[in-house]
Amino acid sequence: MISVVLIGAGNVATHLYHALNKAKNVDLRQWYNRSLPSIESYKNQVSITNNLNDLVEADVYIIAVSDDAVKPLSIALPFENRLVVHTSGSVGIHDLDKKHKRGVLYPLQTFSKSSELDFSNVPICIETLEKEDFKTLSTLAKALGSTYYKINTEQRQTLHLSAVFVNNFTNQLYRVAHEISDAKSIDFDILKPLILETAKKVQHISPYMAQTGPAKRNDKKTIKKHLKLLEHQDHKAIYQLLTNAIKKTHGR
Amino acid sequence: MISVVLIGAGNVATHLYHALNKAKNVDLRQWYNRSLPSIESYKNQVSITNNLNDLVEADVYIIAVSDDAVKPLSIALPFENRLVVHTSGSVGIHDLDKKHKRGVLYPLQTFSKSSELDFSNVPICIETLEKEDFKTLSTLAKALGSTYYKINTEQRQTLHLSAVFVNNFTNQLYRVAHEISDAKSIDFDILKPLILETAKKVQHISPYMAQTGPAKRNDKKTIKKHLKLLEHQDHKAIYQLLTNAIKKTHGR
Ligand SMILES: NC(=O)c1ccc[n+]([C@@H]2O[C@H](COP(=O)([O-])OP(=O)(O)OC[C@H]3O[C@@H](n4cnc5c(N)ncnc54)[C@H](OP(=O)(O)O)[C@@H]3O)[C@@H](O)[C@H]2O)c1
Ligand SMILES: NC(=O)c1ccc[n+]([C@@H]2O[C@H](COP(=O)([O-])OP(=O)(O)OC[C@H]3O[C@@H](n4cnc5c(N)ncnc54)[C@H](OP(=O)(O)O)[C@@H]3O)[C@@H](O)[C@H]2O)c1
Repeated sequence: MISVVLIGAGNVATHLYHALNKAKNVDLRQWYNRSLPSIESYKNQVSITNNLNDLVEADVYIIAVSDDAVKPLSIALPFENRLVVHTSGSVGIHDLDKKHKRGVLYPLQTFSKSSELDFSNVPICIETLEKEDFKTLSTLAKALGSTYYKINTEQRQTLHLSAVFVNNFTNQLYRVAHEISDAKSIDFDILKPLILETAKKVQHISPYMAQTGPAKRNDKKTIKKHLKLLEHQDHKAIYQLLTNAIKKTHGR
Repeated sequence: MISVVLIGAGNVATHLYHALNKAKNVDLRQWYNRSLPSIESYKNQVSITNNLNDLVEADVYIIAVSDDAVKPLSIALPFENRLVVHTSGSVGIHDLDKKHKRGVLYPLQTFSKSSELDFSNVPICIETLEKEDFKTLSTLAKALGSTYYKINTEQRQTLHLSAVFVNNFTNQLYRVAHEISDAKSIDFDILKPLILETAKKVQHISPYMAQTGPAKRNDKKTIKKHLKLLEHQDHKAIYQLLTNAIKKTHGR
């Protein structure tokens, strides 16, 4: 049984709360947030507090707050020599106050309060300074139902960067498609199955193998036609840059 | 009961074959390909031919061949006044020989022979010159289990272009993430759940609402750090262009 204190009440913390609460072999001892209102409705299910001096003892303290708040919060914790971890893709492990045993439990997923998420779909990237702490965190990840990976700081920062490509940038391409199709009164719903299938395809074959389309074939006629169809300079620039990137990747 | 003759044996035609064969209320009367070997193994399930003069009568002839071959093939068909449709996103309806009743049945999905595809996940964009033919094709689409949409030539070409953004370009972003993570010996598997979740998110909320990340927040510190981490000029250029696009979309 691993005992946990959860700190923060944003997207990640809220999902963690539900997963920790449900997990066997996890004793969620307390939930802290600087402001009580956001966690008040849970007070019958877990002990809540907004006072750091009231924090109880636990095997792991998970700090799931805004990146900039991780360091000051770790300093403000009124104890030492306990395992304190953050959940950020970009904050260093050494940004945690060195009075603690330190670690990182970075869930590589996109969290928003509104949508449900099964932790079996949340890979957890673990970094610790001590082997023994790695064992604790990997046991915790397993208890949540997650797959876990041993990831050092440099790798974690690279993963965070990769996540920007596959999540934020991909989503912006969806947005561009939405803009283009809206302009011709086309229902965006028509594109949704393709969006899903594109993501599904790379679950079992590599993006390199999955590529198709005019850029890969270097189909100049279609590329020219598409550039003519695009009315916004910004859309044209994205079309050109990514078309050239695909051509280069596939030796065209 | 709608009778169909299928022409071509590529990715689309092969998926159509299986779906048509299985569909109730569809009588798949014949399968033509210019070369027999690719359809020979089906000869016990359907009448096959490589001779246009042997084509039997049917309600609909579906030409699912390479874009450039659609027009010459429609001219070569040795009959007239029957409903002949192609499956292309970019070929015009008037590229079909005018001796035919003409239509388009454009399946907005990515097909590859190797992976299974349920036609309930294939939106079908229908265009016809005559109302009566639209009825025939929409009945056919329903028989396949597909959702169908009435889409004119301009809209279809815009959809084809949008598909390049959400399919080919998105896939190239996956590829970039693969390159970046490979360079640091990171298992690409870690990114797969995020890829899937990103696509799932926009099934029920708009890409605009779904956006998160450093560009949307205009988090200059992280953006600078990411640009420093990127080793390839090509990756940097994509990062910069899409970061600026997101900032612009979200008024930063
Ligand atoms: N969202 C994701 O998809 C995602 C994915 C992986 C990792 N992460 C990481 O997880 C962490 C939390 O992200 P999030 O998306 O959950 O953030 P969020 O939804 O914006 O929530 C931020 C939380 O931090 C608290 N907070 C902010 N400033 C604070 C301060 N100075 N002192 C104490 N608490 C403070 C907020 O408290 P109030 O409620 O009082 O405002 C809130 O509970 C970050 O390190 C982030 O990089 C996020
Ligand atoms: N692939 C997709 O994801 C997708 C999605 C939506 C729409 N489409 C459209 O569907 C159509 C077919 O695409 P596909 O991906 O199935 O193509 P494909 O896999 O490349 O197959 C092409 C087919 O066309 C035949 N063909 C080529 N040139 C010909 C000619 N001059 N005369 C007669 N037949 C010829 C080929 O015959 P052989 O077998 O003898 O070579 C083959 O059966 C295209 O219009 C395409 O734009 C494709």
